[in-house]
Amino acid sequence: MSLRVGFIGYGFMGQAHANALARLPMFFPEAPATDRHMLCGRNEERVASAAERFGFAHTTDDWERLVDEVDVLYNLGPNDLHAEPTIAALENDVHVLCEKPLAATLEDAERMVAAADESDAVAACAFNYRYVPALRLAKELIDEGALGKIRHVRGKYLVDWQADAEHPWVWRNDAERAGYGQVGDLGSHTIDLARWLVGAIEDVSGRLATFVDERPAPDGDGTLPVTTDDAYLATASFESGAIGVFEGSSMASGHKATNAIEIIGSEGAIRFDLERLNELEVYDDDRRGYERILVTDEDDPYGDRWWPAGHAIGWEHTVVHENYEFLRAIAGEGDDIVSFDEALTVQRIVDTVARSDDRGQRLAVETDS
Amino acid sequence: MSLRVGFIGYGFMGQAHANALARLPMFFPEAPATDRHMLCGRNEERVASAAERFGFAHTTDDWERLVDEVDVLYNLGPNDLHAEPTIAALENDVHVLCEKPLAATLEDAERMVAAADESDAVAACAFNYRYVPALRLAKELIDEGALGKIRHVRGKYLVDWQADAEHPWVWRNDAERAGYGQVGDLGSHTIDLARWLVGAIEDVSGRLATFVDERPAPDGDGTLPVTTDDAYLATASFESGAIGVFEGSSMASGHKATNAIEIIGSEGAIRFDLERLNELEVYDDDRRGYERILVTDEDDPYGDRWWPAGHAIGWEHTVVHENYEFLRAIAGEGDDIVSFDEALTVQRIVDTVARSDDRGQRLAVETDS
Amino acid sequence: MSLRVGFIGYGFMGQAHANALARLPMFFPEAPATDRHMLCGRNEERVASAAERFGFAHTTDDWERLVDEVDVLYNLGPNDLHAEPTIAALENDVHVLCEKPLAATLEDAERMVAAADESDAVAACAFNYRYVPALRLAKELIDEGALGKIRHVRGKYLVDWQADAEHPWVWRNDAERAGYGQVGDLGSHTIDLARWLVGAIEDVSGRLATFVDERPAPDGDGTLPVTTDDAYLATASFESGAIGVFEGSSMASGHKATNAIEIIGSEGAIRFDLERLNELEVYDDDRRGYERILVTDEDDPYGDRWWPAGHAIGWEHTVVHENYEFLRAIAGEGDDIVSFDEALTVQRIVDTVARSDDRGQRLAVETDS
Amino acid sequence: MSLRVGFIGYGFMGQAHANALARLPMFFPEAPATDRHMLCGRNEERVASAAERFGFAHTTDDWERLVDEVDVLYNLGPNDLHAEPTIAALENDVHVLCEKPLAATLEDAERMVAAADESDAVAACAFNYRYVPALRLAKELIDEGALGKIRHVRGKYLVDWQADAEHPWVWRNDAERAGYGQVGDLGSHTIDLARWLVGAIEDVSGRLATFVDERPAPDGDGTLPVTTDDAYLATASFESGAIGVFEGSSMASGHKATNAIEIIGSEGAIRFDLERLNELEVYDDDRRGYERILVTDEDDPYGDRWWPAGHAIGWEHTVVHENYEFLRAIAGEGDDIVSFDEALTVQRIVDTVARSDDRGQRLAVETDS
Repeated sequence: MSLRVGFIGYGFMGQAHANALARLPMFFPEAPATDRHMLCGRNEERVASAAERFGFAHTTDDWERLVDEVDVLYNLGPNDLHAEPTIAALENDVHVLCEKPLAATLEDAERMVAAADESDAVAACAFNYRYVPALRLAKELIDEGALGKIRHVRGKYLVDWQADAEHPWVWRNDAERAGYGQVGDLGSHTIDLARWLVGAIEDVSGRLATFVDERPAPDGDGTLPVTTDDAYLATASFESGAIGVFEGSSMASGHKATNAIEIIGSEGAIRFDLERLNELEVYDDDRRGYERILVTDEDDPYGDRWWPAGHAIGWEHTVVHENYEFLRAIAGEGDDIVSFDEALTVQRIVDTVARSDDRGQRLAVETDS
Repeated sequence: MSLRVGFIGYGFMGQAHANALARLPMFFPEAPATDRHMLCGRNEERVASAAERFGFAHTTDDWERLVDEVDVLYNLGPNDLHAEPTIAALENDVHVLCEKPLAATLEDAERMVAAADESDAVAACAFNYRYVPALRLAKELIDEGALGKIRHVRGKYLVDWQADAEHPWVWRNDAERAGYGQVGDLGSHTIDLARWLVGAIEDVSGRLATFVDERPAPDGDGTLPVTTDDAYLATASFESGAIGVFEGSSMASGHKATNAIEIIGSEGAIRFDLERLNELEVYDDDRRGYERILVTDEDDPYGDRWWPAGHAIGWEHTVVHENYEFLRAIAGEGDDIVSFDEALTVQRIVDTVARSDDRGQRLAVETDS
Repeated sequence: MSLRVGFIGYGFMGQAHANALARLPMFFPEAPATDRHMLCGRNEERVASAAERFGFAHTTDDWERLVDEVDVLYNLGPNDLHAEPTIAALENDVHVLCEKPLAATLEDAERMVAAADESDAVAACAFNYRYVPALRLAKELIDEGALGKIRHVRGKYLVDWQADAEHPWVWRNDAERAGYGQVGDLGSHTIDLARWLVGAIEDVSGRLATFVDERPAPDGDGTLPVTTDDAYLATASFESGAIGVFEGSSMASGHKATNAIEIIGSEGAIRFDLERLNELEVYDDDRRGYERILVTDEDDPYGDRWWPAGHAIGWEHTVVHENYEFLRAIAGEGDDIVSFDEALTVQRIVDTVARSDDRGQRLAVETDS
Repeated sequence: MSLRVGFIGYGFMGQAHANALARLPMFFPEAPATDRHMLCGRNEERVASAAERFGFAHTTDDWERLVDEVDVLYNLGPNDLHAEPTIAALENDVHVLCEKPLAATLEDAERMVAAADESDAVAACAFNYRYVPALRLAKELIDEGALGKIRHVRGKYLVDWQADAEHPWVWRNDAERAGYGQVGDLGSHTIDLARWLVGAIEDVSGRLATFVDERPAPDGDGTLPVTTDDAYLATASFESGAIGVFEGSSMASGHKATNAIEIIGSEGAIRFDLERLNELEVYDDDRRGYERILVTDEDDPYGDRWWPAGHAIGWEHTVVHENYEFLRAIAGEGDDIVSFDEALTVQRIVDTVARSDDRGQRLAVETDS
């Protein structure tokens, strides 16, 4: 029996997850079978067109119907639409993969965690960069102690899509819908990676900036106010004694996808940049400098699933891996997902960064552990 | 009506092309529909297993049967098995995509071209690197004159899979089966790219080397002689007045997929390395140094088909693009394939490099134009 | 008449400045002539040996005598010895080039500025990285508006000389003598560059860390406590609206001299790393990526003084340039020095970072403008 | 007693060697003392001005007088002026450091070697890149076997100073004066490095190109014919079984000083680029990729003479090291020079490359061993 899957959302992430499901049988044949059952969106024509391309059998504009009919919900809508369908699904023991950040508000995120705790279904948050082979290799190195005691963490995510002040307003510029700006959108990725690789964060000092206060309305009629941040900075202390700095911006001219992390320990170091996602640079103190590793060998993470050594994979493969691990968790065969609990912690840190900026104070992260 | 497709070969390239066909409907919905009809190989069990994973309906160990049943043949077998099935298919007006190099011998290649000339079917050779977006951007720049008059070409393809002298003997080490060693396997890629980007080659001076004369037999029983080259070098003159140097080696320790090309003209330059296939470095004389471009924008070659700017594609996407262009040519909607004529010219140059080495003389390339 | 020059200190910086003075006549012949008159240090034998190599005519262990006999004082001693000789010299109208940071304490720094204000002599602080040609080119680009409105600043200075917890204690680990740890030693460089390039800093949030609490005593007898920071982080707001992040560490395994700065504006960006000091990477929004410039052309800053284009200069050349500008200022022919006022502002920011860490609060920088 | 030194030539190389001599006392105090005695050149005014800046006591326009008065001759003139003064000096037992290539013609080079053989003086050719610390480290690695058996050599020297077809004609464009074009000027450096690092060369296949046949005369009056090559290519076999490719061009748009060499062996590899002269990239088969080493540690070649680890040296330091070794050889304390014999072998290879191009044949190198 195939798992009936339903998606809310049919944009970039809809295509990424549909592609992932379509590719699993050839490359991860042991993954539980899925059936792209239903696609949900508001614009009937566009949903129909997307459903055809993405291979969905049915469409709807009613997420409650979708939740009723599927075994698995992929919640790929805007942040403020994460909570209700997710909670409904979990109450129905429908498994959920929810895009990041978990929610637009901390309150929503907490309700989602409560629903996940009550449910027998699997609930996962789609922090896909945990599934980059190079970053998994980094984690293996860190976990086996190759870096010694971690001292420095440096995470940044720089993109330029709103660098032009005339770039139209989007829902991410609206605090109501997005919750946070780049501290939520980009920052949540960086914070998740940092926690996953280095451990719990104790406190943060945040700084947010909005460089452009209003942008042209998408319909071309006047301007709309920007009520979220365009960029954030934060410094952090980790429970382990490491210190770190995080940065994110959607106005970083010249940067398309600089999702980079550098970690330095007493005996070694690693660094990674998503723009070169097949590569990891590694230093260990038997050496004199960073070594550039192409993480495409057969015994690298997921390396036996794709092509011979040296043949690069792309961004989308991170989503394939994520789907594989999520479906395995549903089948009870693995646990390599990002739980809602963890996603809530990321959300708390995002929120703490924003509050820290507001107060001009370093703030403890209440529940990280 | 879908095109019935049959593959000879189910290894690395078999999976790459099966994947490509499977992905076209979602990303290139206007591509002619295909039906993975039949997979041909000698080992019944392995063919069956591959057919299941690759989505083929039928299997056979008889390529003649396959040629009878399909509209399109993908000839993915060893070089010495390229000619007969391809010729049979073309005589039957079955379209052919044949892996590179075109054949093990110049004679076979010539027979294949003759068959293609006689046939109403489309015949293409799978030089997939022409479909790397960054290299297509390079070609656009060259064709529009951005580099001025080309003076220098530097192509190399360095891999290390046989760097260890104890690496077992493979069929590519056998002149009977492979025809040529690395001058054929790696060199054909480099030469094809150089011709495509810079134009006809007039003469070459070649140098071949075999560093390890015998290798452990694959069955573990003694050794087998290496009768092809492990590496080649060549210098070349282009009709345009440019000069170039080509190099290929399967024993280049430290290199996994350094398929690199650099082209310098009077007004600009480009360089590319497959290990960073989403990038092109471009110099023009209004500037002071090379600029690193991430070739993932929407208006980059094939950029509108995949993900938003900055989201890297992988090696396999070159094969998807190649399949798309091949199928379009079948549908009479395009001509962006590598014809057998062109592939024969590459073969002639490979052969001229080898003969030049043998004679210690610079030799004219007989038919390039 | 040559200027009689005296140095306090004969270590690394002593040699760097002696070398600079020795090289000026050949490369900057119009620079005021100097006479290496007297070298001051405590260890008679080592001072004598250094004086011979550095070309000093006389030695002393009495800085007051030195101040009496020279026209120019180079104060190259530990931070806590900056104030007294410098003030004495300035009171005597002896010109002073003082190593950075200006002093071990803010109080000393303020007294030094007061002395400079009262004196007819030139007082300069040796922030030598302002004299890197690539950074001067960056400043030209910023000043002419090529980057548009600056939004992001990222400065870091990572070195590894104390990465090993068994590395002996040095005076920089002692709050009494050094004042601050890396926030003072490395951070002052970064902060000076950031202010010079981007302008006044309004407020900072600091974070300091000491990873190793005690280190082996230099005499091998037990351990000594580390009372300064091993590393610092800070975020900052600039008066112009830009935000920035600064970092410094002496325990950054794998890094020898990563003194790097990245600046992103609305229309362009630059980045620089001292490990590749002849290079500047520049982005402008007519382009698609960063362009790597070798800053060695004849019309680059100081480019006409050294070698033909492409011939790299080294670290020491920054000190030669600094000496040239300092001596020109003495001759009344230029003003391209770092005044004590500016150095005091850097010191205030360093101090504010440290206090901010202590209080866990963002703090305004009192006097930057 | 100081060695009296005389220079023929006061351009770029004159300044480089004068600077080297001036810097030795501070950094290599044990080097034999020298006295910049006499500078020889044809233009009285410019010689006088250069002599003042370079620190020479006397000037002359008569090289025979100079040879009479000095202990050491630095022959820094154009290639066709290397032979006579050098031979005269050696006959007089005056030591000679002659710029590269050794001569404009093979005949001159042979006469110079004969003179050196007869003389009691030291005769060295100024292949300064042997004195780059990173390349010396490479040599140490190769000599101790860290790369295993060398298989591949790739040397190129790309510059752009004549990329513009309107760049004026210079003496290097004249076969009479220069002997060879870039195969002599750039190629001799590459060939010297390759031989020094990898050993004797057995045969070569050469290819020369002149992209621009005539250039504006330097006096602005019409054009002059270009009778030397603008670029060369060569492939080579080494006695050890390695194969190599060499390339040089003065018309390589976008390249200022790409003097690069890559060497791959059975167990490791190195690569170097003069544009980043403080760096060596090293691969060994215990690793997975190239490691970037900053060759500035105290125990690196010449590392104890300059600055603390991480502080880059520049191009000119190679000339300082070269002068140090030359003077030590004069003092009978070392032998780390490039002998005329070796320089003649380089010249023979240059000449063989040029003849090979002419004949379109691979040619044996007659005397390399």
